[in-house]
Amino acid sequence: MSFYTLLKKDPRTKARRGIVHTVHGDIQAPFFMPVGTKATVKTLSQEDLHAIGAEVELSNTYHLFLRPGLEIIGAAGGLHNFMSWHKPILTDSGGYQVFSLTDWRKLTDEGVEFRSHIDGDKHFLTPERVMDIQTVLGSDMVMPLDECSPYPCHKVDAAAAVKRTTEWMKRTRDHFDKTGMRVRGQRLFCIVQGSSYRDLREQSAKELIAVDTDGCAIGGVSVGEPVKEMFEVLGWTVDMLPEAKPRYFMGIGMPDQIVKAVGMGIDMFDTVVPTRYGRYGTCFTDKGTIVIRNGAFKADFGPLDPECDCHACKNYSRAYIRHLFNTSEVLGLRLAAYHNVHYYVKLMRRIREAIDAGTYDEFQSSYLKKYNSELIEAI
Amino acid sequence: MSFYTLLKKDPRTKARRGIVHTVHGDIQAPFFMPVGTKATVKTLSQEDLHAIGAEVELSNTYHLFLRPGLEIIGAAGGLHNFMSWHKPILTDSGGYQVFSLTDWRKLTDEGVEFRSHIDGDKHFLTPERVMDIQTVLGSDMVMPLDECSPYPCHKVDAAAAVKRTTEWMKRTRDHFDKTGMRVRGQRLFCIVQGSSYRDLREQSAKELIAVDTDGCAIGGVSVGEPVKEMFEVLGWTVDMLPEAKPRYFMGIGMPDQIVKAVGMGIDMFDTVVPTRYGRYGTCFTDKGTIVIRNGAFKADFGPLDPECDCHACKNYSRAYIRHLFNTSEVLGLRLAAYHNVHYYVKLMRRIREAIDAGTYDEFQSSYLKKYNSELIEAI
Repeated sequence: MSFYTLLKKDPRTKARRGIVHTVHGDIQAPFFMPVGTKATVKTLSQEDLHAIGAEVELSNTYHLFLRPGLEIIGAAGGLHNFMSWHKPILTDSGGYQVFSLTDWRKLTDEGVEFRSHIDGDKHFLTPERVMDIQTVLGSDMVMPLDECSPYPCHKVDAAAAVKRTTEWMKRTRDHFDKTGMRVRGQRLFCIVQGSSYRDLREQSAKELIAVDTDGCAIGGVSVGEPVKEMFEVLGWTVDMLPEAKPRYFMGIGMPDQIVKAVGMGIDMFDTVVPTRYGRYGTCFTDKGTIVIRNGAFKADFGPLDPECDCHACKNYSRAYIRHLFNTSEVLGLRLAAYHNVHYYVKLMRRIREAIDAGTYDEFQSSYLKKYNSELIEAI
Repeated sequence: MSFYTLLKKDPRTKARRGIVHTVHGDIQAPFFMPVGTKATVKTLSQEDLHAIGAEVELSNTYHLFLRPGLEIIGAAGGLHNFMSWHKPILTDSGGYQVFSLTDWRKLTDEGVEFRSHIDGDKHFLTPERVMDIQTVLGSDMVMPLDECSPYPCHKVDAAAAVKRTTEWMKRTRDHFDKTGMRVRGQRLFCIVQGSSYRDLREQSAKELIAVDTDGCAIGGVSVGEPVKEMFEVLGWTVDMLPEAKPRYFMGIGMPDQIVKAVGMGIDMFDTVVPTRYGRYGTCFTDKGTIVIRNGAFKADFGPLDPECDCHACKNYSRAYIRHLFNTSEVLGLRLAAYHNVHYYVKLMRRIREAIDAGTYDEFQSSYLKKYNSELIEAI
């Protein structure tokens, strides 16, 4: 079976309805992947994710490699068993975290040496090693080691990163096939780099498409550039990608950014925003965010989000959740994170329904307007 | 309807099966009350408590009085509504917390003045005020302001505390009736004091029984005295109490202590032990506690407690929960606390089944033996 089925293209935007097929089940696209950095979506249980309707989870190779370590996850029979999540999992390469350890890593054509942020131990990641690690993790969707350019970035450096990313992608693909990862049902992505330079993005896309991976990701975005520039880069890059493969916009974003990116042809998203914001008491609604610690909510016995049907909104009041935050009670974090992840997952369902109905342009305009989004001018 | 129905007395111990009736539902006795100090049982949701089978919850007046304060709980229509828990609630008087603020309170016959541990604001608690507060909270079971003797305690001080506790109990009872608390379905306890002095315990019990409350609590225990002495005091005191009223052993304790106290005739328990131990990664089993951070569990893919059928034990492994604790992930606290509260609630069900079967003596011996309890000699 192919990895991606394109079901429908929206008539007036570039939005696409599709299905991603994995050995742990299908995922209706476009979709959002809740982030379980260390094999847990912060404050939530796997049963919470099922109740929310999440069809896929993302974990971070770098963190899991260091703790609990491959020996333990291997002994458990892989990450699905270890964390008791039997739906699809995507894991990143660990590269993004390693590159962010600016003073703690040494980059060569062979790979990247780094020191653990936990105990300072030296480790060496290569494109091949990153595949071997993800073999042990048993992820359904596998990301390659790439070189993510910082922002801003001189063109010569961005070009070098594109070159290295392509070289590494070829080695990755060879190793992926040779070690039987494909046969075991794992699926491989490439990651288009090129910073904010259109010709470099084009070069990167072209070279990576030639390697013929299962899916295509757009990397080197949301690294500090202005939002307008991010969407400009996205616009160029997505149009360079093949229609028959799912497109993953890495590390994005706020709900209005997701709505806009879907309209530009993106299928897959991940971000820590809903859980991180939740832990600080900021909750998403169609009208924007509310800060639950705000004094205005101290005797507000209505739900977090009156338009939401999630467990937190059906059962608890703003006043109660505010009290939980003011007294540092864990249930507050749980309820806010639960609502936010539910908000994101449900937003994707609403997005899919709008594409199914062929009315994504209307959905997008009315969503961005209600959300009071700064992106509204751009559509 | 009476507050307590005595269903059965165990033939060879003093254990009792009964039902406590409240306007928010019946509670099968003997029972354990999970402690939601600040209107939340730490790390758990109210739905978790339902799933666990908890029939009653306990909250702390002192903490709720300070935060969120009576105005907000009153506006919510009481504590049940505020926290979305529609089963029975017992609230303490706040006295225990206030008395523990040794340098921050001033005690007179009228009541006790104290400074908030949060902002230093002055407050004054009297027996009447404590009833008024619990009227706003709307608790099903109401505790009076008492004077809890510290340990050790000179007899003259313990005698003064007994005297004051009785005086306050009379004022409490008057105010309770006069302000319509009984009519609204609330039920009132007395708290027997007397430190470790048998004659003072006797005097306290006699004087308080004369006030004729709905239930009887044994206070001034588990305040630092040796466990042997605690059970000695319990033994005297429980025999002084009327059979027709439920008996509440306040703030106890470890599972083996509960098993023993039931055999001595106690019906009601509360303690933060299961949640507090859970948050530190110590989990209860019939064979005693296990410390989940222990290296022995790093690749142990069995459940926390192989004999347990709770959600945490059915779905997650020791290795995974250990990883969650090692990485400071909230789900670890949740799962350990969930298991522990489930363990306590299920223990009470097993206790009730043994009493129903008329075999509590056998249950008690075999439980204490398997738990390797220090209390085994005493039975």
